[in-house]
Amino acid sequence: MDVLTEIRVRYGETDQMGVAYYGSYYDWFEVGRTEFCRKLGLPYAEWENMGIFLPAVESYCRYKHPVRYDEKVKVVTRIKELTATTVTFSYKVRRAKDGRLLAIGYTKHAFVGKDGHLMQLPLEIKGLLKKSTQE
Amino acid sequence: MDVLTEIRVRYGETDQMGVAYYGSYYDWFEVGRTEFCRKLGLPYAEWENMGIFLPAVESYCRYKHPVRYDEKVKVVTRIKELTATTVTFSYKVRRAKDGRLLAIGYTKHAFVGKDGHLMQLPLEIKGLLKKSTQE
Amino acid sequence: MDVLTEIRVRYGETDQMGVAYYGSYYDWFEVGRTEFCRKLGLPYAEWENMGIFLPAVESYCRYKHPVRYDEKVKVVTRIKELTATTVTFSYKVRRAKDGRLLAIGYTKHAFVGKDGHLMQLPLEIKGLLKKSTQE
Amino acid sequence: MDVLTEIRVRYGETDQMGVAYYGSYYDWFEVGRTEFCRKLGLPYAEWENMGIFLPAVESYCRYKHPVRYDEKVKVVTRIKELTATTVTFSYKVRRAKDGRLLAIGYTKHAFVGKDGHLMQLPLEIKGLLKKSTQE
Repeated sequence: MDVLTEIRVRYGETDQMGVAYYGSYYDWFEVGRTEFCRKLGLPYAEWENMGIFLPAVESYCRYKHPVRYDEKVKVVTRIKELTATTVTFSYKVRRAKDGRLLAIGYTKHAFVGKDGHLMQLPLEIKGLLKKSTQE
Repeated sequence: MDVLTEIRVRYGETDQMGVAYYGSYYDWFEVGRTEFCRKLGLPYAEWENMGIFLPAVESYCRYKHPVRYDEKVKVVTRIKELTATTVTFSYKVRRAKDGRLLAIGYTKHAFVGKDGHLMQLPLEIKGLLKKSTQE
Repeated sequence: MDVLTEIRVRYGETDQMGVAYYGSYYDWFEVGRTEFCRKLGLPYAEWENMGIFLPAVESYCRYKHPVRYDEKVKVVTRIKELTATTVTFSYKVRRAKDGRLLAIGYTKHAFVGKDGHLMQLPLEIKGLLKKSTQE
Repeated sequence: MDVLTEIRVRYGETDQMGVAYYGSYYDWFEVGRTEFCRKLGLPYAEWENMGIFLPAVESYCRYKHPVRYDEKVKVVTRIKELTATTVTFSYKVRRAKDGRLLAIGYTKHAFVGKDGHLMQLPLEIKGLLKKSTQE
């Protein structure tokens, strides 16, 4: 399952180079993840309500082309890998107006309980994630 | 009591105008507040550990002169007003190298318990705050 | 003219109090301003292309009720005051699901040229802004 | 050359998980880079004044242990790789009080001129960077 999210570059996300700051892409990845979970039928806010947290254990971005204030970008989010205790999301960021690829990246997250320890996902949720990788 | 904090403008705090973004000043005010509480002898992290939270109920900034990446600013923080359920901090932001006044502002905070309701401060803490206004 | 913008609270916009950080509202005000200028028929990116910059000279926010991650807020932006060299925008932030008023604020901006000096707006733009205050 | 920078975690850098947001580490990497360039004898602001820009082309972080508001971290920055048109910085983030390793990462930057095209560094600057990799 590929989930598409549209985001406009905010003024505060630019830096003095006149383009979006390199850290802003990780905020957009987070927005992509949030929409992915919603499309999955399990908004991430509910994960945390159930006591399941997904802290990042790794994050990566490759910047191919800069993007300016007020330009619209499309973030395509999907699950790249699923293990017993982690999920890795991948992201493609494209300029909306012409589809130009701006950046690619991934973030790897552990499944962690309220006690801060690694946990196994409930089977139902694991199933949802697995199913999304086959669509 | 006036508490001085030095901060260097980060690259990500600039925007495409080539100077610090207007929202960044509120981050600096927060750093000033944090140092104020530490100098008071009661780091803010301990306030929250004791179940006392200080959410902002008001914030204001007047921008007098812009500031650039890597310039050092001095934030002077003090208590401007203290009531039964709120404290107001005021801030002066100066350019370190020449003392030029860059911005002034204030933030007003309520005393709130873990339940989210307004609370009275313990007398000892109230005393600390009051004393700082007389120094 | 009232311009409505919908924004979802991002995870990175929350802080350890579990609600949106007080500085995040200024980012949302900026998004509201951006949409206001677009609705006016003059996207802010074009202002800067024409050599007209609108740095903030004042900003204010009053926080009435906190808002959580992934909640949708509505920002209503309008022009509150227009002078020869400044424009003041006002903002109302409401929770989308029930209209509850979360925060109100304003930002005052100077009209500044590439040289960093105050300038008068071209008459046509001034007219656009003035007209929007009567709608 | 290893350059050490101390940073305190800001309140706004935390998220509702109660620890620093994953994107904040990239801001700290930037602070580390800034101090690295200063120690090199060539503050990054001067690079840009000379028309040399270092946009990120890649960034990576591996998170090993979370860090809380007001904790002090030490960022150790050094050059990991230097090519004709890129420089890669590596970072180690440790908790100041006990040296615990919190995160490691790197950022790769291209040398770009005002025209946005890749450029070769002036020999003198290239020499400075190369020398730092041998210290």
